[in-house]
Amino acid sequence: MTRVHDLTRRLQKDNGSKIVLLVSDGLGGLPLEAGGKTELESADTPNLDALAAVGETGGSIPVLPGITPGSGPGHLGLFGYDPLEYDIGRGVLEALGIDFELGSDDVAIRGNFCTIDPDGKITDRRAGRIASEIGERLCEKLDAIEIPGVEVFVRPVKEYRLVIVFRGDGLGGRVNDTDPQTTGVAPLEPVGADEPSQKTAGICKEFLKQAGEMLADESPANLLTMRGIAMLPEIPRFQEVYGLNPAAIAVYPMYRGLARLVQMDVLDAGTTLESQMDRLEATWNDYDFFFIHFKYTDSTGEDGDFDGKVERIEQLDAAVPRITALGPDVLIVTGDHSTPAKMKSHSWHPVPTLITSDRARTDASTAFGEDQCRTGSLGRFEAQHLMLLALAHADRLEKYGA
Amino acid sequence: MTRVHDLTRRLQKDNGSKIVLLVSDGLGGLPLEAGGKTELESADTPNLDALAAVGETGGSIPVLPGITPGSGPGHLGLFGYDPLEYDIGRGVLEALGIDFELGSDDVAIRGNFCTIDPDGKITDRRAGRIASEIGERLCEKLDAIEIPGVEVFVRPVKEYRLVIVFRGDGLGGRVNDTDPQTTGVAPLEPVGADEPSQKTAGICKEFLKQAGEMLADESPANLLTMRGIAMLPEIPRFQEVYGLNPAAIAVYPMYRGLARLVQMDVLDAGTTLESQMDRLEATWNDYDFFFIHFKYTDSTGEDGDFDGKVERIEQLDAAVPRITALGPDVLIVTGDHSTPAKMKSHSWHPVPTLITSDRARTDASTAFGEDQCRTGSLGRFEAQHLMLLALAHADRLEKYGA
Repeated sequence: MTRVHDLTRRLQKDNGSKIVLLVSDGLGGLPLEAGGKTELESADTPNLDALAAVGETGGSIPVLPGITPGSGPGHLGLFGYDPLEYDIGRGVLEALGIDFELGSDDVAIRGNFCTIDPDGKITDRRAGRIASEIGERLCEKLDAIEIPGVEVFVRPVKEYRLVIVFRGDGLGGRVNDTDPQTTGVAPLEPVGADEPSQKTAGICKEFLKQAGEMLADESPANLLTMRGIAMLPEIPRFQEVYGLNPAAIAVYPMYRGLARLVQMDVLDAGTTLESQMDRLEATWNDYDFFFIHFKYTDSTGEDGDFDGKVERIEQLDAAVPRITALGPDVLIVTGDHSTPAKMKSHSWHPVPTLITSDRARTDASTAFGEDQCRTGSLGRFEAQHLMLLALAHADRLEKYGA
Repeated sequence: MTRVHDLTRRLQKDNGSKIVLLVSDGLGGLPLEAGGKTELESADTPNLDALAAVGETGGSIPVLPGITPGSGPGHLGLFGYDPLEYDIGRGVLEALGIDFELGSDDVAIRGNFCTIDPDGKITDRRAGRIASEIGERLCEKLDAIEIPGVEVFVRPVKEYRLVIVFRGDGLGGRVNDTDPQTTGVAPLEPVGADEPSQKTAGICKEFLKQAGEMLADESPANLLTMRGIAMLPEIPRFQEVYGLNPAAIAVYPMYRGLARLVQMDVLDAGTTLESQMDRLEATWNDYDFFFIHFKYTDSTGEDGDFDGKVERIEQLDAAVPRITALGPDVLIVTGDHSTPAKMKSHSWHPVPTLITSDRARTDASTAFGEDQCRTGSLGRFEAQHLMLLALAHADRLEKYGA
């Protein structure tokens, strides 16, 4: 996708116009019965419907047809980065998810507390799913580990899950998982695939040795395994590739972290959609691109709660007038992927998307929903091209070639 | 795009069938008001509507979603060449635009007459936008410049704009613009990025030195700057990649030049749509592919003249029976990009496209317009795949693989 960013670098122009990207996580859905309505179609959404009526609608393909993305690739695509080119390691995503501010020299690791027997063989890969409070106490203990040449950070995530970060010069991220994915065997030795990663592997070993000593008397969590050892991907700055001054208004750490990955300004968004809208209004003059993230359409979908997702969509719809009142030149409403309540999981289905601007080729859509989006004038498009459309509708791209 | 042309080279077959590609420049448009009709939808087009009813309709994406092409990339895409792979320099396009027959050893440069003060600093980058007659006289003067080892051609374009061509062995096109894009400073020195381009840069310097002497007593145009220094891209022959014997019937030099770029036979087309149709009829038996270019849907769009564009579309429609009477096996009507009168400029919006052939999967379209094309059986496709569809509908491609 380098070529697309070469294009936007070359063609970008700043005309002061403002773009709002409203991401309703997991927005797309499925009808519970064939021929029925999806969550979005079931919801009463007068404001989104009005936008669909004056804008262009279509379906966004997050990665490729049939490929279901996680939150990382889903958002990278929306930000215009090829999700197949920029791979975010699991450790990095876990660190972003707890609001840990990763630097470019950091190696991030997802840890799992586990139980080993006296022979050093794993008997429980999740240490009996210990309570979060126990995990927190153990992490505090491990955070005292000292290894020459690196700073060590140990942070709890939830239950048996933790994040370990090594900060130091010359580290690499190409180290295997030590989790053997089975019980009855010892954890695997960390091995580096190149010289910087060998340095990391050595630090991992020292960390695991000290952790083993510190946890020896604990039960059931008397060791930990390491997974998804990774560094931040080298990824061009959003501002540099698009010529936009971007702000992220997201409640959940993971999405703040993903925005930080492309170096958006991450604003204090409070904890509710209302506080997010307050922040948007307060900073409207300070930025020309706003990424607003709404989590609950995904979490209700994951819970299989069709009606709950409908309610959350209606809640989002009710906030839309506060955005339109600001008069954005371009307003996009989409999701990073679909999360049909029927499937209780993310899915690959195209995500209903609408774009409003003065340059919209209006289509027959009169409401915002999967069925109408299917025949909208945006057609079916790859999520990673959405930023091109956003810039075009904002009149922020010069003509390509004479 | 090499892969597509590798395919067409391998699969092409000649069955004597004939293809007509009718390009209405800037065909696509926008409604002036949300929910209204576009220029094409407003026009009375019984002949195009009849074609849409029996053919396949859809929307062509010139480059990528959101990317607005100039005429060069727009047409390269229609001819089946990846417009991001084949980059046509501004100097080359300017030379094509005045019907200058560029050869593969030529370096083409767009020149701008400018005004410099006694210190050699630019005071006016366009020399007061001198009249075309003055530009012509000055170009005639400069055309006498002699530089050992190369032929020099200087040709007027319009007002302060000119084209300079150096023809000789071992020249390169990677030389910077000498136009500093601002006033109060001297023109930049031309510098070559590689050895052949250093040779070109030396010739540029000698040319500018002699030009400065010749123009010293002129006012306000007492020097010139150079821009878009470039050579023809290395681009495979249309006939070779598709096995078609192609002719171009275009009134405007730019489009004749673009056809010459891929080595179509460029026919004398006169100056009107009628003379173009005369030429088509007269040469019908001599070629199996005809590219017919109609300019005025773009120029009226650029002028913001919605009604004028509607009229031009109706004029084009009236010419269609002369094409269908010849019985082409495949007739395609499309544009190189959209030029909505509302925007007074080229745009990225998908271009309404229709294909008729005996192999068409007819769709619900009953008229030719953006709204019906939105749901036509061609769907949304990249312009650079149009030639594949043309060949397929003409039964000129073997099956791929057994």
